[in-house]
Amino acid sequence: MDLKTQYKKVRKHSLTICQPLQTEDYVVQPVVDVSPPKWHLGHTTWFFETFILKPNFKGYKEFNPNYNYVFNSYYETVGARVIRTDRGNLSRPTVADVYQYRAYVDQAMENFLHEEPSVAVKEILILGLNHEQQHQELLWYDIKYILGHNPLFPAYADENIEQNLHSSPQNWIKIAAGVYEIGHKGTDFCFDNELGLHKVYLNDFEISSALVTNADYLEFIKENAYHEFKHWYAEAWDWVKVNAIKAPLYWYEVDGVWMRYDLSGLKPIKLNDPVSHISFYEAAAFASWKGMRLPTEFEWEIAATQFNWGQLWEWTESAYLPYPGFSKAPGAIGEYNGKFMVNQKVLRGASIATSPNHQRITYRNFFHPNLRWHYNGIRLAK
Amino acid sequence: MDLKTQYKKVRKHSLTICQPLQTEDYVVQPVVDVSPPKWHLGHTTWFFETFILKPNFKGYKEFNPNYNYVFNSYYETVGARVIRTDRGNLSRPTVADVYQYRAYVDQAMENFLHEEPSVAVKEILILGLNHEQQHQELLWYDIKYILGHNPLFPAYADENIEQNLHSSPQNWIKIAAGVYEIGHKGTDFCFDNELGLHKVYLNDFEISSALVTNADYLEFIKENAYHEFKHWYAEAWDWVKVNAIKAPLYWYEVDGVWMRYDLSGLKPIKLNDPVSHISFYEAAAFASWKGMRLPTEFEWEIAATQFNWGQLWEWTESAYLPYPGFSKAPGAIGEYNGKFMVNQKVLRGASIATSPNHQRITYRNFFHPNLRWHYNGIRLAK
Amino acid sequence: MDLKTQYKKVRKHSLTICQPLQTEDYVVQPVVDVSPPKWHLGHTTWFFETFILKPNFKGYKEFNPNYNYVFNSYYETVGARVIRTDRGNLSRPTVADVYQYRAYVDQAMENFLHEEPSVAVKEILILGLNHEQQHQELLWYDIKYILGHNPLFPAYADENIEQNLHSSPQNWIKIAAGVYEIGHKGTDFCFDNELGLHKVYLNDFEISSALVTNADYLEFIKENAYHEFKHWYAEAWDWVKVNAIKAPLYWYEVDGVWMRYDLSGLKPIKLNDPVSHISFYEAAAFASWKGMRLPTEFEWEIAATQFNWGQLWEWTESAYLPYPGFSKAPGAIGEYNGKFMVNQKVLRGASIATSPNHQRITYRNFFHPNLRWHYNGIRLAK
Amino acid sequence: MDLKTQYKKVRKHSLTICQPLQTEDYVVQPVVDVSPPKWHLGHTTWFFETFILKPNFKGYKEFNPNYNYVFNSYYETVGARVIRTDRGNLSRPTVADVYQYRAYVDQAMENFLHEEPSVAVKEILILGLNHEQQHQELLWYDIKYILGHNPLFPAYADENIEQNLHSSPQNWIKIAAGVYEIGHKGTDFCFDNELGLHKVYLNDFEISSALVTNADYLEFIKENAYHEFKHWYAEAWDWVKVNAIKAPLYWYEVDGVWMRYDLSGLKPIKLNDPVSHISFYEAAAFASWKGMRLPTEFEWEIAATQFNWGQLWEWTESAYLPYPGFSKAPGAIGEYNGKFMVNQKVLRGASIATSPNHQRITYRNFFHPNLRWHYNGIRLAK
Repeated sequence: MDLKTQYKKVRKHSLTICQPLQTEDYVVQPVVDVSPPKWHLGHTTWFFETFILKPNFKGYKEFNPNYNYVFNSYYETVGARVIRTDRGNLSRPTVADVYQYRAYVDQAMENFLHEEPSVAVKEILILGLNHEQQHQELLWYDIKYILGHNPLFPAYADENIEQNLHSSPQNWIKIAAGVYEIGHKGTDFCFDNELGLHKVYLNDFEISSALVTNADYLEFIKENAYHEFKHWYAEAWDWVKVNAIKAPLYWYEVDGVWMRYDLSGLKPIKLNDPVSHISFYEAAAFASWKGMRLPTEFEWEIAATQFNWGQLWEWTESAYLPYPGFSKAPGAIGEYNGKFMVNQKVLRGASIATSPNHQRITYRNFFHPNLRWHYNGIRLAK
Repeated sequence: MDLKTQYKKVRKHSLTICQPLQTEDYVVQPVVDVSPPKWHLGHTTWFFETFILKPNFKGYKEFNPNYNYVFNSYYETVGARVIRTDRGNLSRPTVADVYQYRAYVDQAMENFLHEEPSVAVKEILILGLNHEQQHQELLWYDIKYILGHNPLFPAYADENIEQNLHSSPQNWIKIAAGVYEIGHKGTDFCFDNELGLHKVYLNDFEISSALVTNADYLEFIKENAYHEFKHWYAEAWDWVKVNAIKAPLYWYEVDGVWMRYDLSGLKPIKLNDPVSHISFYEAAAFASWKGMRLPTEFEWEIAATQFNWGQLWEWTESAYLPYPGFSKAPGAIGEYNGKFMVNQKVLRGASIATSPNHQRITYRNFFHPNLRWHYNGIRLAK
Repeated sequence: MDLKTQYKKVRKHSLTICQPLQTEDYVVQPVVDVSPPKWHLGHTTWFFETFILKPNFKGYKEFNPNYNYVFNSYYETVGARVIRTDRGNLSRPTVADVYQYRAYVDQAMENFLHEEPSVAVKEILILGLNHEQQHQELLWYDIKYILGHNPLFPAYADENIEQNLHSSPQNWIKIAAGVYEIGHKGTDFCFDNELGLHKVYLNDFEISSALVTNADYLEFIKENAYHEFKHWYAEAWDWVKVNAIKAPLYWYEVDGVWMRYDLSGLKPIKLNDPVSHISFYEAAAFASWKGMRLPTEFEWEIAATQFNWGQLWEWTESAYLPYPGFSKAPGAIGEYNGKFMVNQKVLRGASIATSPNHQRITYRNFFHPNLRWHYNGIRLAK
Repeated sequence: MDLKTQYKKVRKHSLTICQPLQTEDYVVQPVVDVSPPKWHLGHTTWFFETFILKPNFKGYKEFNPNYNYVFNSYYETVGARVIRTDRGNLSRPTVADVYQYRAYVDQAMENFLHEEPSVAVKEILILGLNHEQQHQELLWYDIKYILGHNPLFPAYADENIEQNLHSSPQNWIKIAAGVYEIGHKGTDFCFDNELGLHKVYLNDFEISSALVTNADYLEFIKENAYHEFKHWYAEAWDWVKVNAIKAPLYWYEVDGVWMRYDLSGLKPIKLNDPVSHISFYEAAAFASWKGMRLPTEFEWEIAATQFNWGQLWEWTESAYLPYPGFSKAPGAIGEYNGKFMVNQKVLRGASIATSPNHQRITYRNFFHPNLRWHYNGIRLAK
């Protein structure tokens, strides 16, 4: 697919995700980690305007200079910005304004792409498309959070991505000790945090072919493991107590029955589906309760050719750290990944909300260990 | 005017205020004190549904039982409710839903009012209308806050209530010491906190015929009074420091020029207009800097026949306390005023945003001393 | 008594209060409102050094210039200071250092008082003695808090001021409506907030001759009034919930029996003693539960000649506001009272911890409505 | 050395460290991470009483049952405890009480050790001694913090451990890529987190023979690196801004000259000493500014035979994670290390405050990346 077609396809998909929303759903930010959908739509557009059109397209006229302030996310290098907690306080630009902004920038991009861009620009363009696809995944998380925390529990749509969740047969895959190679090979696109092909030594280990199910997790709840200190990290224990956690996110006990909000509304729990929306703390406690552990990201990468993955991001034991030889790109683009490499945990695989072209065995996703609004799950190792 | 006509007129006015808004403007809650406009529209409707239709109108079918949870404000007696800080996190019910809710309840009220209601119901109905008019005033405050804190500074409308601000000639009105009578007389509607006609003894005092102007206040700023401890209460000083206060709300210094957001956009300060959007702390500090003081609410009530009032609520020195003989009504309605009678300051008069029929010389408005998003001002006494 | 003798007597009394303490008891600050006893001993000494010796005693050599920073309390005018929350973080100066500091300043004061000071200095000296006596009362509060919140519940001493608590016969005193005079008369010492003799008009009222007892209050607890919203101010209700309040400070339910920490240790509740260590919120809720109210400070001042007072500070309904004509003294001394005249409640009378010469019918004590570590109680009015 | 002698020696050393303190210095807790010295003395004693004497010494009478509540640190399994932030709020038990407690338990231990204990008890005893030695190191940190944050900057003693800081010649040590072995070998004591001897693959790397000096770090400050975003992790940047960090802990700029508090008082900076008291964030930013990086804990362990270490704990890039095969011991002892294995960074080596018998090449120390009150430093790798 040529770049222009690719660009159009990716850009259109963001709107397809938002299509069932009401105007009001685009606006709110119920917790700091959730951004208003209109912000995602604006921010991804701002990325192309700021890093491609403004520096490279002669005669390009900025849509609105104030939007730089509104839609910058965290690029310290690019100037002041609305602080993250304030995103949900802005009624303007309206949703219609943001759609216009997208149309304006898309038209300019189309014009710009009449001529083949330089290699350097192409690289940023491809980064921009991958960036937008990452925000498409965040759109799913954030839309689910916005609707699933509304006291009316409105459905997103009856047909939706969560219908792709399913169970797999469980067995143990054995991997022999030895030196293995980790990291991205080849010339296809990948993020900078996957580069630095390098060797690691792994011990013998076994890893499950299947994800932990809701039925498994229900047992963990029923056997009172949320109240048994020994399975929890010290800070996990504090988190459980302070937030009165007793089940995954989106689980609600209604008259003694466990219900779960999914994108089609509040429904009884599907026992055979893989458990989702749990924090690293819960994933690790569950593993401890089972007498097992989570895999490291290296074990996962080596074993993943032998099992199915891609329903849910899988928590690993590994902290998010640079690979040997990692270095940040200069300028704003260099802020992409490196600056987050402390106090986060790596997740591997992909989820039902992930763009197909992000489904790479070397992809390193990362979240703080207390977060759970993304589509994630548990694969056990021992 | 008969009750039905009155009802229709009041209800319609709420929508007139909101008419220039975009859908998104109805949704956000940039600080805890500001409620989303759609919440005001729903809450005032809920009041009639809960206190009139449900208990008194046979066969009335509740619009949506969940709305009780969403639109209850603070009536502890009436059940659980969305906590105040979460009002801006709700994308549903949508604005269209709320307009439908209003239409549904208004239709039921019209049917209900075909027959003359009992005296008790009539009383609650009149309270409900006054309640809605109070929320109309809050709508003005909240809409101004939402637009005036947006980085794009959108105008509400070129024609708007702030154009009614104006200056008055300044002179000193003298009142002689003696016993005076305070509180509401007669049978017209008033709030319970105005009842309890009683005597107070006042000393000789003088009170200004005019409100303090922006020009006066600018001098206070320029003479550095925000940094001079001696004019401030101890907790006011903390407030100034913690919040880095250096001017009234909505004042912005742009390239050395003081601008002010009003409902028609960001404009240079109008020097002769009365200063507004200041906290009690600032009002008291200004008075101290002038070597004067604020009047008490009793002084104000006695002197007010001799000057014009009604542009801005006027901060008084008085704490908001019950009048002799005050007692709360039983049940939820009793929560209306009494439970706030601690740690708030009385404001007297009315503002450009106040319903004409609330403009009573005995009306007791009250806010915490640090708040300033309402239309308020300073009248000096000595 | 001459000034020198008076000075010695007052100064000695501070040490007498502290005499049963262990060194460690002088150091800690378990909550922000409680200051370490050694801080009180240093701060009261600093007052004499700063406001008398340094400006007036030629050749006086400051004990240690850093102590200004350590022992200034809140006088913004006098320079930087250790922030209040840090007082308990300082191990130095040691207790022995502070005793030396006292001895040094006392010696200098004795020398200074060889000659009759000027009228202006005498005024400050008397203020300084009254200031120290106020801190003596705070010493009692703070020592009780430090020991009474220690898990070992150590006694202060078997013989102590709390043994002076006792019951009084209850009857209703009637006062007729009329204009009365309020405020300090005569030339004896009083604080600036008592000045401004002025008239007030009072309605007919009745006031109890006795304080509410522990037995009365126990009934309030047993009848579940801590969980009945209607008796509480809105902010009181939040306070009760957030802090899980269910009894006065120092009450502990041990195996179903209500115990109370007093200065001789943890003891069963004495039912006939007046209830103490309750917040204004609790006092007002108790009055509401009884169908009565608290007196205003003016009612109290007029009626107080007809009942016994002085066991406990009595919460009034009145907010702490300036009397007509009140103005702050210039300079640091002017910070004494005026800057606190917002968001506090007046208490009248005196307590078992109050210096006898502070027991004036016009004395205006004040605390925030949520505080309760001082010796206070409830007198009802209706 | 036999166990009894060893016990006596270790126990005595804790008192030696505290010997120069004033009683007051034992009591305070200026920040949550710093415990009052008397708490350390009590807690280490409680360890022996709880895990050795009570379960194993027939007829042993607990010194004071309330001390379990006071001196438990974090062992969730062993019951309720004074919350960590409250340690500095307790004036009792007094310092003299704690010394008596130590003497009482030491006497009992001596009696108990007349007979050779079982292997299991011996293991706990050795753990207890290592535990006390870890608290001895914490005593140094906490004493320095208490004195070094006092506005009087009192010296601990003129002769003290910081005099052992010194510079080393700088060169680059090269290590070839390959599979290496990590973890504790042999039968000597080590902590459970060092166990699990395992292989890792390392790439070629170079590591410095010397620690970064104060002179080096001063250049980093002078070149404004604290204000250059690109060197900092995102959360590090927030930390720098929120806490207004501009130099290592204990550095004070006095009239344009950089001073540093060490245990002998406030002194000009010694340029050739290794820089200390910096957070992981600062260490990583410094390395980035130099165009280098911090070593991983595995690189450190392999290279450490070739350079001198032991002045300061050295921050590594590695997150604190379990080694392959790690499992927690059952019961309270199992809480020792494992529960902290999330969101902390590993430090390797030892410091001037470390017991000589803790100076193991495999020792894994760990702290949160924002902490800096321990003796730490920077060794660069590339």
